[in-house]
Amino acid sequence: MTAIGIYGSLGRMGQSIVAAMPAYNAEHAGGVDVGEDPAPLARASDVLVDFSSPAALEAHLAAARAAGTPIVVGTTGLNQRHHDLIDAAAADIAVLQTGNTSLGVALLSALVRDAAARLGLDWDIEVAEMHHRDKVDAPSGTALMLGEAAAEGRQMLLSETSVVGRAGLVGARARGTIGFSSLRGGTVVGDHMVVFAGEGERIELSHRAEDRAIFARGAVQAALWLAAQPPGRYAMDQVLGL
Amino acid sequence: MTAIGIYGSLGRMGQSIVAAMPAYNAEHAGGVDVGEDPAPLARASDVLVDFSSPAALEAHLAAARAAGTPIVVGTTGLNQRHHDLIDAAAADIAVLQTGNTSLGVALLSALVRDAAARLGLDWDIEVAEMHHRDKVDAPSGTALMLGEAAAEGRQMLLSETSVVGRAGLVGARARGTIGFSSLRGGTVVGDHMVVFAGEGERIELSHRAEDRAIFARGAVQAALWLAAQPPGRYAMDQVLGL
Amino acid sequence: MTAIGIYGSLGRMGQSIVAAMPAYNAEHAGGVDVGEDPAPLARASDVLVDFSSPAALEAHLAAARAAGTPIVVGTTGLNQRHHDLIDAAAADIAVLQTGNTSLGVALLSALVRDAAARLGLDWDIEVAEMHHRDKVDAPSGTALMLGEAAAEGRQMLLSETSVVGRAGLVGARARGTIGFSSLRGGTVVGDHMVVFAGEGERIELSHRAEDRAIFARGAVQAALWLAAQPPGRYAMDQVLGL
Amino acid sequence: MTAIGIYGSLGRMGQSIVAAMPAYNAEHAGGVDVGEDPAPLARASDVLVDFSSPAALEAHLAAARAAGTPIVVGTTGLNQRHHDLIDAAAADIAVLQTGNTSLGVALLSALVRDAAARLGLDWDIEVAEMHHRDKVDAPSGTALMLGEAAAEGRQMLLSETSVVGRAGLVGARARGTIGFSSLRGGTVVGDHMVVFAGEGERIELSHRAEDRAIFARGAVQAALWLAAQPPGRYAMDQVLGL
Repeated sequence: MTAIGIYGSLGRMGQSIVAAMPAYNAEHAGGVDVGEDPAPLARASDVLVDFSSPAALEAHLAAARAAGTPIVVGTTGLNQRHHDLIDAAAADIAVLQTGNTSLGVALLSALVRDAAARLGLDWDIEVAEMHHRDKVDAPSGTALMLGEAAAEGRQMLLSETSVVGRAGLVGARARGTIGFSSLRGGTVVGDHMVVFAGEGERIELSHRAEDRAIFARGAVQAALWLAAQPPGRYAMDQVLGL
Repeated sequence: MTAIGIYGSLGRMGQSIVAAMPAYNAEHAGGVDVGEDPAPLARASDVLVDFSSPAALEAHLAAARAAGTPIVVGTTGLNQRHHDLIDAAAADIAVLQTGNTSLGVALLSALVRDAAARLGLDWDIEVAEMHHRDKVDAPSGTALMLGEAAAEGRQMLLSETSVVGRAGLVGARARGTIGFSSLRGGTVVGDHMVVFAGEGERIELSHRAEDRAIFARGAVQAALWLAAQPPGRYAMDQVLGL
Repeated sequence: MTAIGIYGSLGRMGQSIVAAMPAYNAEHAGGVDVGEDPAPLARASDVLVDFSSPAALEAHLAAARAAGTPIVVGTTGLNQRHHDLIDAAAADIAVLQTGNTSLGVALLSALVRDAAARLGLDWDIEVAEMHHRDKVDAPSGTALMLGEAAAEGRQMLLSETSVVGRAGLVGARARGTIGFSSLRGGTVVGDHMVVFAGEGERIELSHRAEDRAIFARGAVQAALWLAAQPPGRYAMDQVLGL
Repeated sequence: MTAIGIYGSLGRMGQSIVAAMPAYNAEHAGGVDVGEDPAPLARASDVLVDFSSPAALEAHLAAARAAGTPIVVGTTGLNQRHHDLIDAAAADIAVLQTGNTSLGVALLSALVRDAAARLGLDWDIEVAEMHHRDKVDAPSGTALMLGEAAAEGRQMLLSETSVVGRAGLVGARARGTIGFSSLRGGTVVGDHMVVFAGEGERIELSHRAEDRAIFARGAVQAALWLAAQPPGRYAMDQVLGL
C-alpha cells in the first residue's frame, strides 16, 4: 500500500482523489490545506499530490524536499518562477508537474507530437476544444498543451506559430501555424480535437472526458508511479511509458 | 426541358452549373459575362442563374425583369442596396437569393431554426466550421447563415448575440449568445456544425460538403423550381418545401 | 406544486426522478414498488410516472384510470398487449409512453423525421450509436426509435427496410434501406447519430448524453406537461411542442 | 527523375498514378496491362507499381525480380500464396505491399498500434468506417488493417478477438475484443475511426479521405521511397519513417 498525502485536500480535486484511492493499491496518508504546516504530512506520506494554489507551491515543495518525498504538482496557473522552483526541487526529489492528469490526454499529447513530427508542414494543424459554459478562459490549458506537443513535434515554438480567435478578413492560412478554436456551452467536461489537414485527407485525434473523476484517477496512478522514481522532473506521458 | 441562362458563365460556378445540367430536365440557354448585354439571354431563357459579381447585379435584375424571367441570385458579397434591388425586382418576377445553393445546407438551416425555437435559451448554441487553407474570411458566410437561422428560431437578432474569435480571459458564457469558431486547413470543401449544449446532453447538427459540385446541382434544382413560381422573393429552404 | 407519484420508486430511475424534482415545480407524492397496492398512490398524485416492469403495467394503468390520474410510462420491453392496454387506458386518462425520456432525443427524433421526409430516397440513412460495455442488446432502443422516425418521414415501415449487423460480402446498399451500427465500450452513457448521405454531401444529426440524470429530468418535465392534458395517448415530442 | 512503370495502367488507379506524377520528381516509364509481357517494362523502370489483379501478381514479381527492379504491390484480394510469393521476391528486390497507399492511413495505423500498446485491455477498442453506397464488402480492408494494428499493439491476433455485425441480444462486451462497424451511404470516399473507450474518457483516432487522388499520390511517394531501398519486404508506415 502506497500512502498518498494531499495538499489542497478540501478542494474538489483533493476530495475526488481521496474517493479514487480505494480502486488502487493506495491509502490516504492525510490532507493539509492552505495555512497549515505541510511538513508532517510530507514525512507521513510515500508520495504527495498538490492541487492547492500557486501561492502555496513554494512551501509544499520545500516540505517534500526536506522529507525526501516525491510530489505530483497538478496546480494550474503556474508562472516561470514556479517552474524554476520545481526544477530546483527536482534535483533532490521526483517531481511530476502537469496541467492535466488524465492518462488519455497524456497519450493523445504523445500521439499528436509523433504525428506532427511525421507529417511535416504540408499538413495544417488545428486544435479545437469544447468546455462547459462557466469556463472563463480560452483556449483551455489542455488545448495549449496539445498545441505545444504539436509544435515540439515540428521542432518549432508554439508562441511563434499559434493563431487564436480567427475572425474577420484574416487572409489565407499561413504555412506552419497552429490554429485554436474554443467552443463553450452546457455542461461539457472537456472535449479536445487536433486536426491534421493535408491535401485531400484529414487525420483527427480526439479526447472526450465524460467524467471529472478521470483526473483524480490519473492523479492517483501518477502518484503510484512517481513513488518509485529517482529524483528528477517528470511529465504525465512517462506514466504511460511513452 | 427548361432552358437555363447563366450570368457569369466563365466563372467556376458558371461552368459547374453547365456541367450539372444533363442530369436534370434542363438545357443550357447560353451564357453572358460581365460587360456583355444581358437582355438577349434573359429573353431566351426560361430561368436565369447569376453567379457573376455584385457590381453586375443591377443590370442583370433589370434584364430579367424586362423579360419577365425568374432569376436565381447566388452572387455573394451583397450589401443592403443589392437586397433592396432584389426586393424591388421581386414585385414583378420570381427571385431566389441565397449565399449557399446546397440543398443539404438549406435543410440544415431549417432544422437549426426549428431546434433553436423548441429548445429555448437553456441550450447554448455554437456554430463551428472548417474550410480549406485558402479561405480568407471567418466565419464562413454559411456559418453566419446558420447562426441567423438559430437567432430567428429564438426570435432574436444575430447581430446582437453573436460571439466570434473567443480568446483570452473571456469570462463565463453569456446566456442567449451564439458562438462561432472557424478552423482552416488542407483542402476541406466545407464542414459546418451547430451544437446545442444543454444540461447533461448535446445535440449536434452537421453538414459535410464532399464535393463542390453540390453547389452547382443545387443551383440547377433551384432554377427548375423557381421557373414555376409566381413573382416574389424566395429562399433555398422553399425549394425543399420546408 | 404538482405532486408526482412513482411506480418503481426503488429502481435507479425512480430514485433519480425524486432527486430531479427540486429543480422543478414538483413535489414527491410517494413511491410504490412491485407487489404493493398501486391505488392509494394513484389517488394521492397529480400525475404518475412508471419505471417499474412490464409485468406490473396492467395494474398500474388500472389504478391510474380508476383515480383519473395521468401517467407517464417509461418502462421498456413492452409488447403489443402492453400497447393495447395503454391505448385502452388513454380513452379515459392522459398517457405518455416513451422508450427515452430525454428531451434532446425527442427533438432529434422530430428533426430526423422531418429530414427524412424532405430529402427523399436519394439520401441514404444510417443510424449509429455507442453505449457502455455492459449494454447487452444492439441496436439500442433509442436507435430503433430514431430509425422509426426516419421510416415514418419516408412513409415506410422500418421493419421492411432496416439493415443490421452488416458484415461480409453484403453487396451494394439497397435503395431505401436504413442501416444500423452499434459500438460498445467504456462507460459511454449513450451517443446516437443519424447520417443522411447524399451525392457529394452528408447531413449528420447527433445526440450525446453526458449524464443519466437527463432521463430523470425529462421524465419530470414530461409529467408536469402531461398533468395538464386531456385524455389521450401522447409521445415525448409533444412535450417540446413539436 | 525516377522512372515509374505501372502494371495495371488502364485501371482507375493506374491512370490516377500517371496523373499524380508531375507533382513529384517522377516520370512515367510506361504501362503494361494484363496479358502483355511485363519484362520490358521492368527493365525500363527504376521502380514498378502494381495495381492490376492477383492473378497477374506472380508474373509481375518474376519480371521485377529478373530485372532487379523494386515493386510496390497495391493489388487487393491477395491470399496466403500471394504473400509467400512476395516474401520470396523480397529476398532479391525491395517489395512494398499494402492494402491502402494513403500516407494518412499509414500514420493512423502506426498511432493505433502505439495507443493500443500503451492503454492496455482496460480500454475497449472499436473500429468504425463509412464508405459509399456501392461498396460491396464490410468491414473495409482498411478497417481490418487498423484492427490488425490495434491487435498487434496488444500482442494479440485479430482473428481471435474481432467482433463484426453486432446485432440482437449479444450480451456484455467481452474484454479484449475489437469491434467493427460499417456504415454505407452516398458517395463517401472513406472515413475510418478507431475508438479507445476507457473508464470515463474516450480517445478517437480518425482518418477522412476527401479525394481518391490521395491513394495515387501515396503510391507515387511510396515508389520514390522504395526505389532507394535494399532488398526486403516493406510496408507503408516505413515510408513515413515510423
